[in-house]
Amino acid sequence: MRKTAGAEPSHPLFRQVYEFMLKRIERGEWKADDKLPSIRQLADELGVHRLTVFKAYRALSENGKLYVKDKSGYYVTPGSKLDRNIEEGAGVAGYRVRSPMSDIQRLPVTYQFSQALIDPGLLPNLFLSDYVKKVFDLYPKVMGTYSSVQGDEELRTTLSSHFHERYRLQLSARELLITSGAQQAINLIAGIMLGPMDAVLVERPTYSVALDIFRRAGARLVAVEISPQGYDLAAVEELMRRHKPRMFYINPTHHNPTGYTVPAKQRKLLVELAERYRCLIVEDDPFRDMYFLEEPPPPFFAYDTEGWVMYISSFSKYVAPGLRICAVACRYPFMERLIAAKSLADNGTPLLNQKIFLHYYTSPRLQQHLGKLRIALQVHKEIMEEELAATGWEWLTPQGGLSLWVKLPEAVPVDKLLARCLEHSISFVPGEICDPLGEMKSWLRLSYSFASEALLREGVRRLTAIAREIEAEEGS
Amino acid sequence: MRKTAGAEPSHPLFRQVYEFMLKRIERGEWKADDKLPSIRQLADELGVHRLTVFKAYRALSENGKLYVKDKSGYYVTPGSKLDRNIEEGAGVAGYRVRSPMSDIQRLPVTYQFSQALIDPGLLPNLFLSDYVKKVFDLYPKVMGTYSSVQGDEELRTTLSSHFHERYRLQLSARELLITSGAQQAINLIAGIMLGPMDAVLVERPTYSVALDIFRRAGARLVAVEISPQGYDLAAVEELMRRHKPRMFYINPTHHNPTGYTVPAKQRKLLVELAERYRCLIVEDDPFRDMYFLEEPPPPFFAYDTEGWVMYISSFSKYVAPGLRICAVACRYPFMERLIAAKSLADNGTPLLNQKIFLHYYTSPRLQQHLGKLRIALQVHKEIMEEELAATGWEWLTPQGGLSLWVKLPEAVPVDKLLARCLEHSISFVPGEICDPLGEMKSWLRLSYSFASEALLREGVRRLTAIAREIEAEEGS
Repeated sequence: MRKTAGAEPSHPLFRQVYEFMLKRIERGEWKADDKLPSIRQLADELGVHRLTVFKAYRALSENGKLYVKDKSGYYVTPGSKLDRNIEEGAGVAGYRVRSPMSDIQRLPVTYQFSQALIDPGLLPNLFLSDYVKKVFDLYPKVMGTYSSVQGDEELRTTLSSHFHERYRLQLSARELLITSGAQQAINLIAGIMLGPMDAVLVERPTYSVALDIFRRAGARLVAVEISPQGYDLAAVEELMRRHKPRMFYINPTHHNPTGYTVPAKQRKLLVELAERYRCLIVEDDPFRDMYFLEEPPPPFFAYDTEGWVMYISSFSKYVAPGLRICAVACRYPFMERLIAAKSLADNGTPLLNQKIFLHYYTSPRLQQHLGKLRIALQVHKEIMEEELAATGWEWLTPQGGLSLWVKLPEAVPVDKLLARCLEHSISFVPGEICDPLGEMKSWLRLSYSFASEALLREGVRRLTAIAREIEAEEGS
Repeated sequence: MRKTAGAEPSHPLFRQVYEFMLKRIERGEWKADDKLPSIRQLADELGVHRLTVFKAYRALSENGKLYVKDKSGYYVTPGSKLDRNIEEGAGVAGYRVRSPMSDIQRLPVTYQFSQALIDPGLLPNLFLSDYVKKVFDLYPKVMGTYSSVQGDEELRTTLSSHFHERYRLQLSARELLITSGAQQAINLIAGIMLGPMDAVLVERPTYSVALDIFRRAGARLVAVEISPQGYDLAAVEELMRRHKPRMFYINPTHHNPTGYTVPAKQRKLLVELAERYRCLIVEDDPFRDMYFLEEPPPPFFAYDTEGWVMYISSFSKYVAPGLRICAVACRYPFMERLIAAKSLADNGTPLLNQKIFLHYYTSPRLQQHLGKLRIALQVHKEIMEEELAATGWEWLTPQGGLSLWVKLPEAVPVDKLLARCLEHSISFVPGEICDPLGEMKSWLRLSYSFASEALLREGVRRLTAIAREIEAEEGS
């Protein structure tokens, strides 16, 4: 039997036929206790060999999706629900529910503590428009021109030397891809690296949207605890050995949401582990330049010698987030795959945005702006901490980044606090959605970067007042 | 047996385990004649029930990927190649080869006839920069602000009334999604509609990048011939009945590559078929306004009453292609799914680009520009036709669009012509890649819209001269 099977030319199609049938069931196109088309009919419809359909029917009945009624044929087992399938992360395209995070962020509120974005008022908006004018003088046809898929060469060349000077990264322009924001970068990387059941290591807690993207790819999330001291490398090695993860998604510098920074000595060691276990490290590094006192250690990418680190640098966040310019650094052949994915995804990031970013970025004004911005963010952070001081809540003062990671006492359930806050036009991110295990229910992320100083102070006051109410209610 | 199987809780995981193992084999992580881990080991690694792994092993050996050596365990069957898997369109993420089309288009050549884009010299570049200035005056913080995922409401509102006035489409702003170019739109739609083995109807010939996207999704391409009279509706109905396609991707107005326009009377009928067979029509309509004499019939979307047409309007192509602004119109729940996909893909198109487009678009200048552009394109077309007149090649003079679809005589093999042309810095699109069946080897697409008039005339002269050489060689 195996012999015949092996010889059968149409067999590599087995999985596709299997998936196709499974989807019809899950979409309810084939309903509970429906009689399925005959093997001959379906084979004709799909244009595949009958034996292939026969095997798919058998596999489906073996896993309980179908049952056979005496000799009359195959029937759909009741209760093959789609939702179940999604929960398992099989990520049936198009049926995915929206991330709660994105919904929370999208709510228009007066006191915005859920977005780890910078107050537009702190950005050099007026200066920027000059650079736009400059771009049109330099490239009068920029509006009529497409960028290359990989991104504007002038920009990539400039960035490669910037990464060299500022972050000690050795790379050439051809090892950089320009994407429309860090999220597109993560999505493209997931697209080329992850398939159903592939293991991906993620920090606990981490950026919730990344979790959504990996879940949609059908990957298995394997949690790695992050602490002020970084990771437990022995535990990481054990997980790499056991799960053979395709990648480890990290945000090791002013980590989102905790603000922790992984110490330099661990960086080299983790890169060595990644190389040994052929686990790609995907280093998301948006907050590197948002430090308060001293510069953080170099990126993991700087320690990489064998091409097992991918570096996502969306520092445009604090230059002009609206431009959505992000750069991904990686080695070949990974880069080749990324370019192919970008090519199908949108055929290249708009040239205008790249040129505006390039010219503003290379201006002396950027560094002045950066210095001011760091101070402003530190002031924001201190305002938030002042207003929280009386609460007795727990957090670690971050050395950079845009948020506080706060632990509430038992007496103040975060879900209840969030519900009440939203009624009062205050939003924040509940820790639960940052946790790949969906726990951390007593934590929350409060971003101090987006609200103006006045709204920040007032908003945190109101938030803590609401918390006191709840505490009183719970106590009584 | 089936009973136990049905009861087994871990069973819905079967497919994922199966796919995961298949991928390890295809990636060569498990090599030919390797002994596989024991069922217990793999079950532990994946954290699933042993029975699930056992069934996956059995399914894999049934389809010839594994073989059993006496009682010692499972081994990998030699020759489970990845490329084979890709040819079948299973589209293993990250291993997909780049589309030949995009490679041809990317080649920098002097005589550019492969890009169906408009000569940047024909675009109102100078005017545009004024509007950019205006945008910064109106929205000083536009660089610091993210757009909503669905797209700027002001733009969507404006476009919905535009679509109503110009194209007779009844829709509200919430039925529009702004994407970064038509290609992203097609990619997002494929993402929510198509999975492995799903049938998708495509015109023959059609836009080759769309074919790449559908293949990557693992879909089955089912070809529908398009002629100057449109489609054979009886044939289409038969295909819908037989293949139950999830969608029909069409470009019915100044069709790419042929230039044909599907007559009005067919539009209503096809929409009715789509509704009857629950087959989503995806109407890609970038060339609607690029007519020479008379306006084309209304879009299919205008005839849709039950929400079975999705409309992709990338008319920004002739306004400011560099902005990459495209609008997709569709009804709920499709729109809800599209927004979720867009949310994960890039979290929204840059606001700056949307605002620039909005303000230029609503200006009186656009209509002046459009009138001029139509005349310029017609002149370009006529230059190309003049230069081709002596060849005896066959084409139908298009009533609009950006390209000629030309049939060469046997004596001039298109592949040979392309190879020789590229040596002389002339490029065009070989018909073969526009054909879902990979035939049409004697056809080619010559775009007259991108090269300037001078380069156009000279380039076509050189191209025809090269063809005469080849004809002579072939004859001798």
